[in-house]
Amino acid sequence: MNLDPLIGATPSWMGGGDDADGMVVSSRVRLARNLAGYPFPGRIEAEQQRQVIEQVLSAARGSASLGAATYYPMGPLGHSERRLLVERHLISPALAEDDGGGVLFNGDESLSVMINEEDHLRLQAIHPGTRGREAWAAVSSFDDELLGVLSCAHDPDLGFLTACPTNTGTGLRISVLIHLPALVLTEEMERVLQGLGQLSFAVRGVYGEGSNAAGNLFQVSNQATLGADEGGIVDSLIAVTSRLIECERDAQEALMEEARAQVEDKVWRAWALLGSARVLSSQELMSLLSAVRLGRTLGLVGGVSSSFLNHLMIATQPSHLRAEAGTDLEAEERDMRRADLVRRRMAGAEKP
Amino acid sequence: MNLDPLIGATPSWMGGGDDADGMVVSSRVRLARNLAGYPFPGRIEAEQQRQVIEQVLSAARGSASLGAATYYPMGPLGHSERRLLVERHLISPALAEDDGGGVLFNGDESLSVMINEEDHLRLQAIHPGTRGREAWAAVSSFDDELLGVLSCAHDPDLGFLTACPTNTGTGLRISVLIHLPALVLTEEMERVLQGLGQLSFAVRGVYGEGSNAAGNLFQVSNQATLGADEGGIVDSLIAVTSRLIECERDAQEALMEEARAQVEDKVWRAWALLGSARVLSSQELMSLLSAVRLGRTLGLVGGVSSSFLNHLMIATQPSHLRAEAGTDLEAEERDMRRADLVRRRMAGAEKP
Repeated sequence: MNLDPLIGATPSWMGGGDDADGMVVSSRVRLARNLAGYPFPGRIEAEQQRQVIEQVLSAARGSASLGAATYYPMGPLGHSERRLLVERHLISPALAEDDGGGVLFNGDESLSVMINEEDHLRLQAIHPGTRGREAWAAVSSFDDELLGVLSCAHDPDLGFLTACPTNTGTGLRISVLIHLPALVLTEEMERVLQGLGQLSFAVRGVYGEGSNAAGNLFQVSNQATLGADEGGIVDSLIAVTSRLIECERDAQEALMEEARAQVEDKVWRAWALLGSARVLSSQELMSLLSAVRLGRTLGLVGGVSSSFLNHLMIATQPSHLRAEAGTDLEAEERDMRRADLVRRRMAGAEKP
Repeated sequence: MNLDPLIGATPSWMGGGDDADGMVVSSRVRLARNLAGYPFPGRIEAEQQRQVIEQVLSAARGSASLGAATYYPMGPLGHSERRLLVERHLISPALAEDDGGGVLFNGDESLSVMINEEDHLRLQAIHPGTRGREAWAAVSSFDDELLGVLSCAHDPDLGFLTACPTNTGTGLRISVLIHLPALVLTEEMERVLQGLGQLSFAVRGVYGEGSNAAGNLFQVSNQATLGADEGGIVDSLIAVTSRLIECERDAQEALMEEARAQVEDKVWRAWALLGSARVLSSQELMSLLSAVRLGRTLGLVGGVSSSFLNHLMIATQPSHLRAEAGTDLEAEERDMRRADLVRRRMAGAEKP
């Protein structure tokens, strides 16, 4: 399988549309489904796995949503190709470990379905910015098409049945990827995380966990999938996102009042280092991108788009760098190539 | 007294002439002299101080060396004006504390005489780069002119008499200001410092002490002034300077072999931060200037002159910043103004 076309491209959900203030990178909706009459993937036979794939592909190819999509079975893909798909959020780390699964996704990577992951089907839509409702509409429409053809495991009382009970019911997980640098800088993030936990929202870093999330990027998602309808789940996540944006905005204002020079210093140093470093760890790059993203939200750096920052974040992931190099890379080489790539892109960027 | 003309100017010894490889910033020669028939400054009366000043000024004004120089008595100068002269190495911190002294220096600040410091006269010549012999020639010629007019305390056996016995004899102290970043980075500086101590050379940081010298700039000087002739003292310092340059060069080569990417990273990050920081402590600025200076020596950054780096070092000293601002500055404001000044200068600098 050739994944080369992916490397240079930026998925549409990273395009930064509807991301006016640069705080919400993307909104993602995922639905878990299982075919009736087959064991869950944890105890399925190889032959049954193949049948599941066949049925799902046949249904998807007949759909308007993914009729023209390419299917990538895990089996023929090497380790780094699978990791590349993980880095693009097209498959989960679990699917990458399993030769019996695969993924089908459309050209702009906004809609996909993993087959034989923890459940037989994991439908996913990712849209840029706060477009959670659009993501829900896309995934729901695809779901309707599939349900018209496939017979899915469903219980009249419980709803959709899933391998893990936490997904049973709607099978719906919605999340936003949100940038909260001022809450981290003002050390309010712990308190916010506690509040979100009490409201039954889960928070993890896009890379890294808790308030040490790399690049101050947090993935906030619903925990309950049972006992609420899909619209309610989507609405409540959108509401909590709005509230988080307000909190972050307040923290940003406080920061600018108390330490404007230090904030500007942080932003401009980050911009300068992106264009100049010769060695750049992934961790440092995430911090620098976070500072520039904050500068963009605060209106300090104009002319820098969210999609540019998102592109740098994805294109500098280890397997993306490996793919661009065409060869395996030691950690030290990777840090040099990461710096080179960022510097080349920065040379083409408008000075803000 | 108006010191404004000094602020924007770069003293000739910072001009970077003869500083082909950027390692030796300057060479300085100092002579201690005392007038016969007066107590040393530590026990002198105010009236006698005035007489010393009068005699020295009269002799200096009749000299070719400092005939046209301006005399700055300490008395009328405020604290920050005195500190400004200290920052330019025109007076010692001790003279700045004493209302009874003063300094006379020429337009390019290469030749000066402090009056009523620890000794009645401290003649000083500073030349750029490794021009220690030229500095010695300049100060010696001025000394000859003064000795033709003034009667100085001299003992046929001991030589010139001075307030502190360590200066007795020739009264000569010669020093170089040398940049040794690779010896510091490779942790060989401690060993070098010990070796210099055994050879009776004193080493201190231009700011800060020992191997933690700010900006990796070390002032190396002779300790013995007695029992050697002046030419021998000058030659031995020049010889030890050449040896230090060799050691530093070896360390630079080793560094480039083992960690070229890291060195380039350090240099280019420093260059970028000089042009972008909004808050800059004196300590950090010295580190950044050191990295760029190293890059210049290694041929990584072209088009950056030593004098530009020297200028940034002097112009950003606290009293220079205060003078430019025209008002007292808190430490935090100073760090912001330092960053502003550096950024303005960098904007005018050619991108290397």
